[in-house]
Amino acid sequence: MARVYNFNAGPAVLPLEVLQEAQSELLDFKGSGMSILESSHRGKEYDQVHTEAVANYRQLLGCSDDYAVLFVAGGASMQFAMAPLNLLGPGQVADYINSGAWASKALKEAAHIGKVHVAADCSQEIPTRVPALNELKLTPGAAYVHLTSNETISGAQWKTFPLTDAPLVADMSSDILSRPFDLNQFGLIYAGAQKNLGPSGIALVVIRKDLAERAPASLPAILRYQTFIEENSLYNTPPCFSIYLMMLVSRWILKKGLSTLHRQNREKAALIYALLDGGGFYKGTARPECRSDMNITFRLPSEALEETFVKEASKAGLKGLKGHRSVSGIRASIYNAFPLEGVQTLAAFMKEFERKNG
Amino acid sequence: MARVYNFNAGPAVLPLEVLQEAQSELLDFKGSGMSILESSHRGKEYDQVHTEAVANYRQLLGCSDDYAVLFVAGGASMQFAMAPLNLLGPGQVADYINSGAWASKALKEAAHIGKVHVAADCSQEIPTRVPALNELKLTPGAAYVHLTSNETISGAQWKTFPLTDAPLVADMSSDILSRPFDLNQFGLIYAGAQKNLGPSGIALVVIRKDLAERAPASLPAILRYQTFIEENSLYNTPPCFSIYLMMLVSRWILKKGLSTLHRQNREKAALIYALLDGGGFYKGTARPECRSDMNITFRLPSEALEETFVKEASKAGLKGLKGHRSVSGIRASIYNAFPLEGVQTLAAFMKEFERKNG
Repeated sequence: MARVYNFNAGPAVLPLEVLQEAQSELLDFKGSGMSILESSHRGKEYDQVHTEAVANYRQLLGCSDDYAVLFVAGGASMQFAMAPLNLLGPGQVADYINSGAWASKALKEAAHIGKVHVAADCSQEIPTRVPALNELKLTPGAAYVHLTSNETISGAQWKTFPLTDAPLVADMSSDILSRPFDLNQFGLIYAGAQKNLGPSGIALVVIRKDLAERAPASLPAILRYQTFIEENSLYNTPPCFSIYLMMLVSRWILKKGLSTLHRQNREKAALIYALLDGGGFYKGTARPECRSDMNITFRLPSEALEETFVKEASKAGLKGLKGHRSVSGIRASIYNAFPLEGVQTLAAFMKEFERKNG
Repeated sequence: MARVYNFNAGPAVLPLEVLQEAQSELLDFKGSGMSILESSHRGKEYDQVHTEAVANYRQLLGCSDDYAVLFVAGGASMQFAMAPLNLLGPGQVADYINSGAWASKALKEAAHIGKVHVAADCSQEIPTRVPALNELKLTPGAAYVHLTSNETISGAQWKTFPLTDAPLVADMSSDILSRPFDLNQFGLIYAGAQKNLGPSGIALVVIRKDLAERAPASLPAILRYQTFIEENSLYNTPPCFSIYLMMLVSRWILKKGLSTLHRQNREKAALIYALLDGGGFYKGTARPECRSDMNITFRLPSEALEETFVKEASKAGLKGLKGHRSVSGIRASIYNAFPLEGVQTLAAFMKEFERKNG
């Protein structure tokens, strides 16, 4: 089997050993005579998976007893709605920091639900960036402040999170557990799993428990964080197989070590950023001070060259380098599970491509 | 590998050949060099999966152009909220037919959202049943009428669906595609996949398109059926792997033939129901005229005997026979993918158990 180098932005590359373990026990989970896909969500096999998943993510994120770790069907887009539905009461305002396409989507969905104030907006700027801390115009008494820790499309990433009076809410879909951070600074974080944690269709949600009590009584049970807290994400049948995969990934992160992964992520990204700074051929899209370690975005001298670049890279086994359809250009998504050798191969390809076309 | 007979109510047994195919290509999907778990939801590999899944379910359900087939993250519990959020306007009433535990849950969630009228209620009756058509007290001008085609816990199943003036909405989670039915009689059907269609964490939704236009403008995009219709369930990253498995199951159903499966399901169920009618030892829980072909529920002379039954059956490789914790007793869930041999083995076990303990 020839595995390619998969630069997809999400669904994205998973650790090979996770896939191998899932494959090996797909027909018979731990001698139970059935697949984990077929196991009851109330049975002991799945119970162990679920319990370990919760425990591992609690450990990885440094959760105190004040926080709950939840698994919620749907991705970040569902959280774009659930966060304001639960936390933004009538007459209140939520501050949204607009750093790009994903922050805009979160903001737009929240504006369906309640009153939203844009605390900063650099979503249209190129080079792309996230706002500086001193640009934020926060509302006194806001219900919460929302930010997007890493803009998957623009390739801009927060390096230091703001300290806010109101609870800080973050969409961490594309960089969760790629680096350590202080959870206690946040009231709520959520992440679609399909970048650093597992398959698409599920989100990891971590919430300070007292915030879940804010939800209005009229909110349907299935949309209430409180329901998930009270039932340990087992109010209804959860996406069991997705949580199983997330559990396997959490084990892999624990084994690697979060600090080690962080160092490796920075080293991987630096290999490509060095090339973007090395001459005029490749031009980074994000401002240097907020370059993402997860999604590296850059342009070539022409769209025609970009097209050739993507095609030739694909032939060389470097897949998924085409930038998002809304912005074009090149994007190399190199999440936790993306191997160093793949980045080295891309770097070599880029040098050769520049030599031939520069 | 020793596969057991898996009577779980859901997540439930999947066709062995579906699991085998998923296993064989889990590390390298169709020579792409990556897992379908890692493939972009906008790429050609996943696109083929998605397109085939939609087409197969359209074919199996006999969808005209008036209907859309959608894949929505979350199970039936999410649909308990989405149906009234989309279809039940202010000042309107929805009729709910309460046939048991699942209908009650749908009703309770809807009552959070709008005005609900209970058109019939036999949810507390034992023997269990669904209402007769002439018992229904429908509201003239109701927004819709909701029923639960098969009560997974009580083992009662609708054999003939009511003809209603208002759009008929059905939770078909536990018997969808176990038998043919006329979709044109319905405005909306939904089914959590984890019984007859695939893994947990996703629902198949089929909606008459004009009904989706009813949703209020204030409803978040991710909760609107219209969003899913307009974007072919690709508004956000869908649960790709779950849809892939559902596609494989749809192929399997097409290969078997829906009529054949229906006949086999009735034959399988009849083997056990014959034993329930054969003497006084086993006592069926559902009234004969609405006995489910999917979930066969029965009692033994004492709870102590039921416990022994479940334990000894488990030792004999017959797993998951314990009734739902809310009602006790025995439940044998025998969905499409449950093999005839397993039912024959259960029947033999039941005869022997009665001989020893009767």
